[in-house]
Amino acid sequence: MSTNRVLAYLAEHQQRHLEQLCDWLRIPSISSVAEHRDDVRRAASFAADELRDLGLATEIIETGGHPLVYAESEQRPDRKTLLFYGHYDVQPVVPLDLWQQPPFEPLLRDGRIYARGASDDKGQVYCHLKAVEAYVRQNLPLPVNVKFIIEGEEECGGHGIERFTDANRKRLACDAVVISDTTLYNAETPAVCYSLKGLSYFEIRLRGPAADLHSGSFGGTVQNPGNAICEIVAQLKDGDGRCRVPGFYDDVLDLDAAERAAFAALNYTDDVLREETGAPGPFGERGYTTLERMWARPTCDVNGLSSGYGGEGAKTIIPATAVAKVSMRLVPKQRPAAIAAAFQRYVESICPPGVQCEVVNLHNADPVLIERDAPLMQAGLRALAAGFEAQPVFVREGGSIPIVGTFQRCLQVPVLLLGYGLSTDNIHSPNEKLEIRNFACGCRTSALLFKETAAPV
Amino acid sequence: MSTNRVLAYLAEHQQRHLEQLCDWLRIPSISSVAEHRDDVRRAASFAADELRDLGLATEIIETGGHPLVYAESEQRPDRKTLLFYGHYDVQPVVPLDLWQQPPFEPLLRDGRIYARGASDDKGQVYCHLKAVEAYVRQNLPLPVNVKFIIEGEEECGGHGIERFTDANRKRLACDAVVISDTTLYNAETPAVCYSLKGLSYFEIRLRGPAADLHSGSFGGTVQNPGNAICEIVAQLKDGDGRCRVPGFYDDVLDLDAAERAAFAALNYTDDVLREETGAPGPFGERGYTTLERMWARPTCDVNGLSSGYGGEGAKTIIPATAVAKVSMRLVPKQRPAAIAAAFQRYVESICPPGVQCEVVNLHNADPVLIERDAPLMQAGLRALAAGFEAQPVFVREGGSIPIVGTFQRCLQVPVLLLGYGLSTDNIHSPNEKLEIRNFACGCRTSALLFKETAAPV
Repeated sequence: MSTNRVLAYLAEHQQRHLEQLCDWLRIPSISSVAEHRDDVRRAASFAADELRDLGLATEIIETGGHPLVYAESEQRPDRKTLLFYGHYDVQPVVPLDLWQQPPFEPLLRDGRIYARGASDDKGQVYCHLKAVEAYVRQNLPLPVNVKFIIEGEEECGGHGIERFTDANRKRLACDAVVISDTTLYNAETPAVCYSLKGLSYFEIRLRGPAADLHSGSFGGTVQNPGNAICEIVAQLKDGDGRCRVPGFYDDVLDLDAAERAAFAALNYTDDVLREETGAPGPFGERGYTTLERMWARPTCDVNGLSSGYGGEGAKTIIPATAVAKVSMRLVPKQRPAAIAAAFQRYVESICPPGVQCEVVNLHNADPVLIERDAPLMQAGLRALAAGFEAQPVFVREGGSIPIVGTFQRCLQVPVLLLGYGLSTDNIHSPNEKLEIRNFACGCRTSALLFKETAAPV
Repeated sequence: MSTNRVLAYLAEHQQRHLEQLCDWLRIPSISSVAEHRDDVRRAASFAADELRDLGLATEIIETGGHPLVYAESEQRPDRKTLLFYGHYDVQPVVPLDLWQQPPFEPLLRDGRIYARGASDDKGQVYCHLKAVEAYVRQNLPLPVNVKFIIEGEEECGGHGIERFTDANRKRLACDAVVISDTTLYNAETPAVCYSLKGLSYFEIRLRGPAADLHSGSFGGTVQNPGNAICEIVAQLKDGDGRCRVPGFYDDVLDLDAAERAAFAALNYTDDVLREETGAPGPFGERGYTTLERMWARPTCDVNGLSSGYGGEGAKTIIPATAVAKVSMRLVPKQRPAAIAAAFQRYVESICPPGVQCEVVNLHNADPVLIERDAPLMQAGLRALAAGFEAQPVFVREGGSIPIVGTFQRCLQVPVLLLGYGLSTDNIHSPNEKLEIRNFACGCRTSALLFKETAAPV
């Protein structure tokens, strides 16, 4: 039976697959840093070469920014069609000194692959490629038509993929989109994700003096942008972590009783939170459990602060400028454009005197909600159960995958979020890793999904 | 009359004196940069050689760090004794590309000497040496005994001079200390400075999660150190810039009516402030003029903020840590140790839950107040009036010169702060310069000071 042959192939070739993944991980495809532009393109070529070798019609598509990799198998009209989406670009790697090894020199240790991009998202995308390989190399017919669209601007907020999707609805036509860029619920429990948060990301820039001033010569005479930025940020939330932007909660879709019960059954304890984060304990909006806040309540967080002297010891200056990067995670029914406008108005209204304030909306993303009883979602649960040999659960996700909303809107098909990572994979942090077992189970799950969705989606 | 001969000598030899100063300025004595260690020592030898040539008993004194230059004339018991303090080390020179010429290749142009150290402090110290030369080379008796102590760690925060002063009170015994390391009030108005602010410098360090977290995965669940540091800093001052540390103003010595009137007479306008700072306008504590805040009110300023991502574009993290560098400039009668303790208690008391807070006192310095009607101060005013041919004023200074407090405490004598620089001399910045006219007037003033202080100090 072909499924057995496919799974056997994946087991047999696992070591080679890992080594090939390491080759991809060696390419420092940091999309937000201009000097890595050519590296990003090399990472695209790596994926394109592999898809072409598997016999897929493959193309590198220019977007004006970083390119898209598009590939499709033979499209037989008697088969369902799955469109796999992923991204080959990665997050920045600073602070470098906190990495145990250089972030682009993959390290296989203790059953894990350590490297920037191992979990987010090269390692997960690679599972789908290797599932296709298991069919193609054994001359087994794919149970479904497959299409791949892999982008290079996911981590830098580029819009190439959205414009391409919007303009190529026929080419991308499919019965379902599959995305592996999320996580298992925990190490033992695979999951299908049915909701993502949206995002509205801002940079608040303050300018005071023309240059840094001697804090002795001019202290007390002019507004200090470093103090002023703190006054602004301190007014973004109340003492319980509730956002103070006017109207922020107006459109929030409340959790229903079934969801609250299902969340409670997952028994996410304070100890688990401490273990996963290393933080002293939970903190946030009153009246909600940690999991409810994580998955279904909007948030407002500082992502970066910089002003004045950041080196060792003392430097006595009044900084000329201060910058805060602040992002809001939004939940279903909140509208990013309306929230962004309200945020901008609010920040301008609370800016202290004596500085010039610029409030820049870097990007926005829609929140996502997917019907849990769709046939595709059930096929995903079955593939996970067999691929991971464990009972999967439904989860939500606090992160944003802006493209999901684009696919829903342009292609009018369901989106299956099938994560192979762990929340402890240190994505966006030093020492990012992927569990090798999850890579192996992910390859199996992807292969099994072809069969599970061959039935009417 | 000997004074006329001295002034004539200084006029006649001015060009040679400038050329010799340039030789000293060519030595890149950057004390904070290890690779310049030998250059720093060469700059010390330059000063020592010159003092020895003038017949002073001269010694280079090891401190463990950069050496001190100590010299003294014949000490006749029937003369008053002046101790001249200065420093031969200089600030770093980055960013080099903003200099019009290499910082250690002095350029004489438009009536100025451009070079690192021209104003801070070699050029000012050199005035005192040349004043001595004008007496010695003409075999005129010095009206006072002179002692010189010139250090090499002023710009790198070394403590060699403090230890030496504390341990050598008899050797340094004098009737007054003279320091030329400050500025005229403005280009037309020489000044005697009678007060310096003190300092208490802190680093506030917050720790939350063990590493940066994905702001989607964990937003809303734990305290964000970036938000928390802003909440702390925002509570350090009220909306008018008044410090909220309990007891902060308790010991502040208020300005008297004469001082307020004298400050007002200096007519420091908002336009001058805008020109000097490039800031949109004045800001600070209500009820005080800009000059009162600058010179006589304590301040609390952010010197640096850093948390999370400071690069280009967006990174969606909850930062693991946040650091604020905060310093308070203190005025006479405030006690740095008491203020530091109050600051520490206050910050710990307002720290939000969910982060670990460390409040580190990097260093403190005492404020300084010198009696304006002391005979020494009046002698300084007379010397300035004749040396610069302009009516001098009394000023205060917002910066700190920690050694002044050390001299007051160890030697129990008044300190005359007699500045020959300008606030526009770009000290600590590219294109540092000294006005040649101020060098010439400074040499005259130093020479005249010998005579003015020969009367009972």
